[in-house]
Amino acid sequence: MRTVEWQDGVVRMIDQKALPWKMQMVDLPTYQAVAEAITDMTVRGAPAIGASAAFGMALAARQSSATTTADLLNDINTAAKVLKAARPTAVNLAWGVDRLVKLAQHGNYGSADAIREALLAEAQRVADEDVAINQKMGAHGAALIKDGDTILHHCNTGALATVDYGTALGVVRAAFEQGKKIHVLLDETRPRLQGARLSAWEMEQLGVSYDILPDTAAGYYMQKGEIKICLVGADRVAANGDFANKIGTYQVAVLAKENNIPFYTVAPTSTIDLNLSTGAEIPIEERGKDEVLTPYGNPLTPAHFKARNPAFDVTPHRYLAGIITENGIARPPFTESLKRVVAGEQV
Amino acid sequence: MRTVEWQDGVVRMIDQKALPWKMQMVDLPTYQAVAEAITDMTVRGAPAIGASAAFGMALAARQSSATTTADLLNDINTAAKVLKAARPTAVNLAWGVDRLVKLAQHGNYGSADAIREALLAEAQRVADEDVAINQKMGAHGAALIKDGDTILHHCNTGALATVDYGTALGVVRAAFEQGKKIHVLLDETRPRLQGARLSAWEMEQLGVSYDILPDTAAGYYMQKGEIKICLVGADRVAANGDFANKIGTYQVAVLAKENNIPFYTVAPTSTIDLNLSTGAEIPIEERGKDEVLTPYGNPLTPAHFKARNPAFDVTPHRYLAGIITENGIARPPFTESLKRVVAGEQV
Repeated sequence: MRTVEWQDGVVRMIDQKALPWKMQMVDLPTYQAVAEAITDMTVRGAPAIGASAAFGMALAARQSSATTTADLLNDINTAAKVLKAARPTAVNLAWGVDRLVKLAQHGNYGSADAIREALLAEAQRVADEDVAINQKMGAHGAALIKDGDTILHHCNTGALATVDYGTALGVVRAAFEQGKKIHVLLDETRPRLQGARLSAWEMEQLGVSYDILPDTAAGYYMQKGEIKICLVGADRVAANGDFANKIGTYQVAVLAKENNIPFYTVAPTSTIDLNLSTGAEIPIEERGKDEVLTPYGNPLTPAHFKARNPAFDVTPHRYLAGIITENGIARPPFTESLKRVVAGEQV
Repeated sequence: MRTVEWQDGVVRMIDQKALPWKMQMVDLPTYQAVAEAITDMTVRGAPAIGASAAFGMALAARQSSATTTADLLNDINTAAKVLKAARPTAVNLAWGVDRLVKLAQHGNYGSADAIREALLAEAQRVADEDVAINQKMGAHGAALIKDGDTILHHCNTGALATVDYGTALGVVRAAFEQGKKIHVLLDETRPRLQGARLSAWEMEQLGVSYDILPDTAAGYYMQKGEIKICLVGADRVAANGDFANKIGTYQVAVLAKENNIPFYTVAPTSTIDLNLSTGAEIPIEERGKDEVLTPYGNPLTPAHFKARNPAFDVTPHRYLAGIITENGIARPPFTESLKRVVAGEQV
């Protein structure tokens, strides 16, 4: 089962807001519904958002009543704007949309229907490639994991954050599948608790040994020497290696450095944005305070209390031991190694 | 209104588990009930626990049917063991109990009733002194706060964590009462959310400008340069300045150091344990996983998911700019300055 897929003319995705209580699928018949599902985090995780947006573009082409390629391209451009505005931080969203827009613009199509077919095939390729890329990252990253290691992980970067297999948790899965005895400490990842709700659910499914930690306790276990390596995902990596990821990632990075624990992000090259020279240019989404005060309908405080809710932070590249990509592990200096992996070179 | 007080032969305390939804008092007729209220965190906060334990001892003396001073001392010793076992980390608990045991043992009493009276008077002194000490710490600490400052605070250290006024939030209150325009960022403090539930409630009562932060976001606001000073409480300070406090304190300290932000703990001398040379000797309580998974009856994950729940961590003294006590601000080297403040010297 994939996190997001094309099914009989609709985009079908796992409703991640319903987990870990129930596994239910939602069918989205329009690109507007796909955009809404990205905004309200029915689907989340940078690679999963990228694939969802690609399928959303294929859907937009089918929704359009255009009979000429020119009219269809107009409608495709409109849909592209709507989908790209769904969330600001993860570059995979724009990457998935732009990949399909370019294909529509630059192909030599005899009819509007030919564009429709090409876009659907391309969205399917985006999804299939994501799974293959994750398995490659898993293999590269698993080489860093030793038998007996305890791994700290932040947020959710498993199958649910991607089309399948996962990025940072894909590395965990690959190490587990190699028969290594490992234990994963999962930051619960307030406010939306992707670690406690999604990553723990995935570890339960796979049978990987884990414990959920309050976000306040990651440093405690580092201090005690229990954690051997930290693995996180990424929503956007700048050319110098600075990267945006779920709020709290920066804290894990600083604590890892202070305790001499290697800290890696696991990011497909589609997450690397060479157009940005540093992380300071990455837009950071601030979401509503209700996610903090009343998560998933559970009132933790009165609704009138004040709260702030930045969804991401930027970790400066100096905290990173490496960036695990499908083309190998990029090492400092990242301005050079990232260019190489983005160009497809194996490092 | 005090967090804990003696009222017509019972110990009356604010039920902190009912806040911020309602302000309700509980009357505890036995020392066993006081011990239970400490264990289940109806009352929490090191100074509030110390005063509660002192009142619990006065209650134990009244509960005892002993008619001789020797028999009463036996019963008092039994109660002391029960109360001291209620929670392991905060030294104020043992300090409050031992202060009353010593008074009972070393006084020259003509009757059991004379001991009973002396213990109640002493418990009352412990409570009254706590308020006066907090106001002194507030005055010392407020000198560090500038007009316009944003302060980061972890857990709850306000009136509710003490008999009244507060320790770290007492400093905030003193600065606010001096007319300084300040803003407080309150770590929500998972898993029990003392920041989001108790500190925010107190700031609402006082009218101090605040925002609750997910624990994941403290570093983000430090990185942005918004935070000028970090203030936390303490549950036990070792002779070298290492100190135990609510889980997550260590992380705040490391992030503050990384961002060159001064980090202080506010601790009455009753929290300083010169018997311990370093923080490595402080016992750390681990509580049940249900506090993480189902806080206050709100199921965030299925109950069978696995979680760890250390209640405290130890912050090494090298992260501290100073320890704000009722006798002034102890500065490094703490092995010297702490001896002086504990001896009653003004620093």
